[in-house]
Amino acid sequence: MAKQKRETFNDFGLGEKSSSVGYRALNKDGSFNIEKINIPFFERLNFFHSLVTMKWSHFFLFVLLVYLVVNIIFASIYSFIGVEKLTGTKGISALDQFMEAFFFSAQTITTLGYGRIAPLGLSANIVAAIESLLGLLFFALATGLLYGRFSKPISKIKYSEKAVIAPYLKINGFMFRIVNPQRNQLLDVEINVSVSMKRKGTNLRNFHILQLEREKVRFFPSLWTVVHPINDKSPLFGLSEADYFKKDFEFIAMLKAFDESSGQMVYSRSSYKPNEIEWGQKFIYAAKRSKGKTFIDVSKINETSKVVLN
Amino acid sequence: MAKQKRETFNDFGLGEKSSSVGYRALNKDGSFNIEKINIPFFERLNFFHSLVTMKWSHFFLFVLLVYLVVNIIFASIYSFIGVEKLTGTKGISALDQFMEAFFFSAQTITTLGYGRIAPLGLSANIVAAIESLLGLLFFALATGLLYGRFSKPISKIKYSEKAVIAPYLKINGFMFRIVNPQRNQLLDVEINVSVSMKRKGTNLRNFHILQLEREKVRFFPSLWTVVHPINDKSPLFGLSEADYFKKDFEFIAMLKAFDESSGQMVYSRSSYKPNEIEWGQKFIYAAKRSKGKTFIDVSKINETSKVVLN
Amino acid sequence: MAKQKRETFNDFGLGEKSSSVGYRALNKDGSFNIEKINIPFFERLNFFHSLVTMKWSHFFLFVLLVYLVVNIIFASIYSFIGVEKLTGTKGISALDQFMEAFFFSAQTITTLGYGRIAPLGLSANIVAAIESLLGLLFFALATGLLYGRFSKPISKIKYSEKAVIAPYLKINGFMFRIVNPQRNQLLDVEINVSVSMKRKGTNLRNFHILQLEREKVRFFPSLWTVVHPINDKSPLFGLSEADYFKKDFEFIAMLKAFDESSGQMVYSRSSYKPNEIEWGQKFIYAAKRSKGKTFIDVSKINETSKVVLN
Amino acid sequence: MAKQKRETFNDFGLGEKSSSVGYRALNKDGSFNIEKINIPFFERLNFFHSLVTMKWSHFFLFVLLVYLVVNIIFASIYSFIGVEKLTGTKGISALDQFMEAFFFSAQTITTLGYGRIAPLGLSANIVAAIESLLGLLFFALATGLLYGRFSKPISKIKYSEKAVIAPYLKINGFMFRIVNPQRNQLLDVEINVSVSMKRKGTNLRNFHILQLEREKVRFFPSLWTVVHPINDKSPLFGLSEADYFKKDFEFIAMLKAFDESSGQMVYSRSSYKPNEIEWGQKFIYAAKRSKGKTFIDVSKINETSKVVLN
Repeated sequence: MAKQKRETFNDFGLGEKSSSVGYRALNKDGSFNIEKINIPFFERLNFFHSLVTMKWSHFFLFVLLVYLVVNIIFASIYSFIGVEKLTGTKGISALDQFMEAFFFSAQTITTLGYGRIAPLGLSANIVAAIESLLGLLFFALATGLLYGRFSKPISKIKYSEKAVIAPYLKINGFMFRIVNPQRNQLLDVEINVSVSMKRKGTNLRNFHILQLEREKVRFFPSLWTVVHPINDKSPLFGLSEADYFKKDFEFIAMLKAFDESSGQMVYSRSSYKPNEIEWGQKFIYAAKRSKGKTFIDVSKINETSKVVLN
Repeated sequence: MAKQKRETFNDFGLGEKSSSVGYRALNKDGSFNIEKINIPFFERLNFFHSLVTMKWSHFFLFVLLVYLVVNIIFASIYSFIGVEKLTGTKGISALDQFMEAFFFSAQTITTLGYGRIAPLGLSANIVAAIESLLGLLFFALATGLLYGRFSKPISKIKYSEKAVIAPYLKINGFMFRIVNPQRNQLLDVEINVSVSMKRKGTNLRNFHILQLEREKVRFFPSLWTVVHPINDKSPLFGLSEADYFKKDFEFIAMLKAFDESSGQMVYSRSSYKPNEIEWGQKFIYAAKRSKGKTFIDVSKINETSKVVLN
Repeated sequence: MAKQKRETFNDFGLGEKSSSVGYRALNKDGSFNIEKINIPFFERLNFFHSLVTMKWSHFFLFVLLVYLVVNIIFASIYSFIGVEKLTGTKGISALDQFMEAFFFSAQTITTLGYGRIAPLGLSANIVAAIESLLGLLFFALATGLLYGRFSKPISKIKYSEKAVIAPYLKINGFMFRIVNPQRNQLLDVEINVSVSMKRKGTNLRNFHILQLEREKVRFFPSLWTVVHPINDKSPLFGLSEADYFKKDFEFIAMLKAFDESSGQMVYSRSSYKPNEIEWGQKFIYAAKRSKGKTFIDVSKINETSKVVLN
Repeated sequence: MAKQKRETFNDFGLGEKSSSVGYRALNKDGSFNIEKINIPFFERLNFFHSLVTMKWSHFFLFVLLVYLVVNIIFASIYSFIGVEKLTGTKGISALDQFMEAFFFSAQTITTLGYGRIAPLGLSANIVAAIESLLGLLFFALATGLLYGRFSKPISKIKYSEKAVIAPYLKINGFMFRIVNPQRNQLLDVEINVSVSMKRKGTNLRNFHILQLEREKVRFFPSLWTVVHPINDKSPLFGLSEADYFKKDFEFIAMLKAFDESSGQMVYSRSSYKPNEIEWGQKFIYAAKRSKGKTFIDVSKINETSKVVLN
């Protein structure tokens, strides 16, 4: 019984009670149409994760802001101690002196240390010694963050914009295509496709895992047409295009692979709604051979041609 | 036989011989109620692990201390060589001169190098050259440590404070709830729940793995109510709340998942004792829908309502 | 049916429709004989991946170029502000002054900061403060890239140049040898061998997974002779050397292992075409014992001797 | 047949043909008693792996040497250009001038840049600009290496010095104990034990995997006594201590676990020869309870007491 359950219900934690017609659990880009609210601040907070995943523009702005603020703080400390404790400072007005302290601070925290301005006496020297230590730790952290940002495994797997219902052997199949447009090699690629549908007369949704022609490939150097044969065991068996809309189908594809270049697992997901499924179309073969080499035309991933269904 | 053993005995290396009533093997925060003693110092020592897992306050104190000690050592060396070998030093008293040597050392080890003070002659130059090399290695290490500290995968999975005994289909179930309050996506989430109980008339404990309604989900974007159906195969079958106390039950939950943002496996664990189990309560549905989006109210993880048991 | 399919068809995403005689899907070095074309620029782009996998000479050239360009840009800015804002600059001609600005820029971006030249006034100081910050981020990135380049797991698994058909028990076997020439330990080593062949009368290819004597070893400290026994279930059963050429066989070997030193999975692959298979040869034993230690002579990996086939 | 083979022959790539009495394939510390010879230099070479795994003393010596050599090279270049191109140099003799060039180089490559000596003119400035870039890359690399050295997962699993033959249920068992003396948590711990024995009348060895009471634990917070029950299916069944010596047994234990603190898999191995097996001894229970906490006395891992065998 447990086994049967797992095949017909698999809610991925998406919850069964979410179901007005037209609802989409998974967006096209693989993000979830779900938001968590009322999370206590400290449980939600993950400093490293935020800094690694925020946009580049935000990240640089954040670094610049921290740099500015920290230098203002230290400039204030040097001003408080007395700018005369920094040899070589020029400027008579208070603002000029503060700016000299500010630039001295910047030269210290980056360990630049031109030396035109240099600390003199105990207090200024102690502050400068601490600031330079802080600077090194600060940039050590920046190094880690930049490495984290760049090395995080990103799968840019591309899904065909539309899925099709096309002939497969003596029956029909639900098919879509995927390609890895990058040069990195994906290995041990596993794909899993489910369909979620409105339960008749209720507000609930059922989930079914779809049997695939092939669920795993060892390499993935070219285009892969993922096929679910619509045989008599398929939850799609005997259904018309109108039924797909009536049951408000959502096809959810999930891919998992080992990325040889980063040495890490990458995940990818996408979904298809009934209006993104073309009936009686098949995908066009996108490979050609020339001089003993195979060329895959990635731009043809979405190209289909008309076909008569079985 | 081997197979049967594994299902009914699984001591996780916790040992079977630990059993006065009220004992807890696993603390609420997932740490073990176990301490290893008499470990030879060098076998216990793991420098990197300690520096990566110690508290932030301790870590910064440690860095500051090393910085201080190393500078004192080098200041002593420069003083021994003679402060006159450092051009630009000011100060007549021995203490003043030592402080100048100290700050020169700090400016050298951070590769700040203002140049107000600079080494002159062979010996001072050799020491400074070595110190700056050391400084770079020291901060290279700090970079690694800070990266290690920040990038170490932390699962902040939140467990409901209490478990409940609530109706499940036509029987009852042992249930608790979990949520990932952070924005990072957890994938291929596996959960495993065991119960440990006092063996009648002895001081030993038995361990049973509990069958779950679902042991694995591919995604975990929302709340997950983990359910153990108390059917006739369950070790909980037919037991009353009083029996739970008498047998001194400890429910141990273990979770394992792939954290998409760090690309690493994360583990989490918690446990429930009989006084943390509420009978005849069920968890309240914590999701609402608005504008085609699902909102999960994380703050409702512990909310239950009264219910009649089967 | 699904199961049967998986054993006899496994196209690794290589596509079935690629088959003039003499075609090779997998090159000897494990790269694919496949090229993706017409990929939109931004989907193909993976900055980090490119910089981590490009040749060392290209990488250093790239770094040098960036260094040059960035310094020229900043030198131009300093020149625009006015070289008189940099104290200590020498040189009267415009070129000399630009060069001084250029070297000041280099001393700033590397946080070298000799101080012979130093910024004076607001504008020059602001630019210098930004440049030193940029420099630190730039080299933080370089640190990450160099680490990424060095730490990426590289399997240098060596395959015997030729495969052989040699006696195995009472039948014959398809055999080749592999060795890990490096000192790092490979663990949980899995190998998988397939054969791709021209489908009779068509332009298509079939793929068959070959059963191996052993598919997995826990350790791999020495030479491993991989054996496919040619029994009556083998797709090679009863075929002559001429048949191998006629069917245009391609044997594809894929290896997967855990590299203990890097803590990561490594993958390796190679292939054999009929002209790389020797019939009636067997591999020579390449280990000798001396003083209780086993010595593996890696240079003998390709050595074979004549043998009579069963 | 394939399946049966795997259970009775598993040579781990150790080769079957290695068998004078007293031979040990696996040393006590888990390293192999195997050496690869005649490896072409460039195939053996793995720069990063060597620098990450070499001894600390060798590593620091290597860094110091590179530092010295690089500075000598650059000092020679500056001397060739002419020391007069470095302002501030003191010293009249050629050696003194070379030393000044050497220390200027050291101040440049570490980006220390005191400025007492500074480059003047095109040629000296170009060399200094390149040297400082090189210095940053060099220390970027050192950062990566230090991180690689520290973060590489090290399992310090401790095996009991001796294995024992002790009563187990109504039969006897082959047992040894393991403990993780460190504070890091090991999860999903798998152990695998094999025995290799001399084949009668030949120079070959057979390998048998031993069935264990338990092959996997989810946690490993305390001592684990690994038990192979010597039942009638065991290759040890009915053998006496003398037989163990005659067949020149070698018991090989292999452990694999997930290290929670590093987020990586760790491996460990050890072996037992007949002279390291005690008959009629059992391990002493090493845990005690105090104030609701369990204490594991790691120092008792080797303690046994006499017992009568079944």
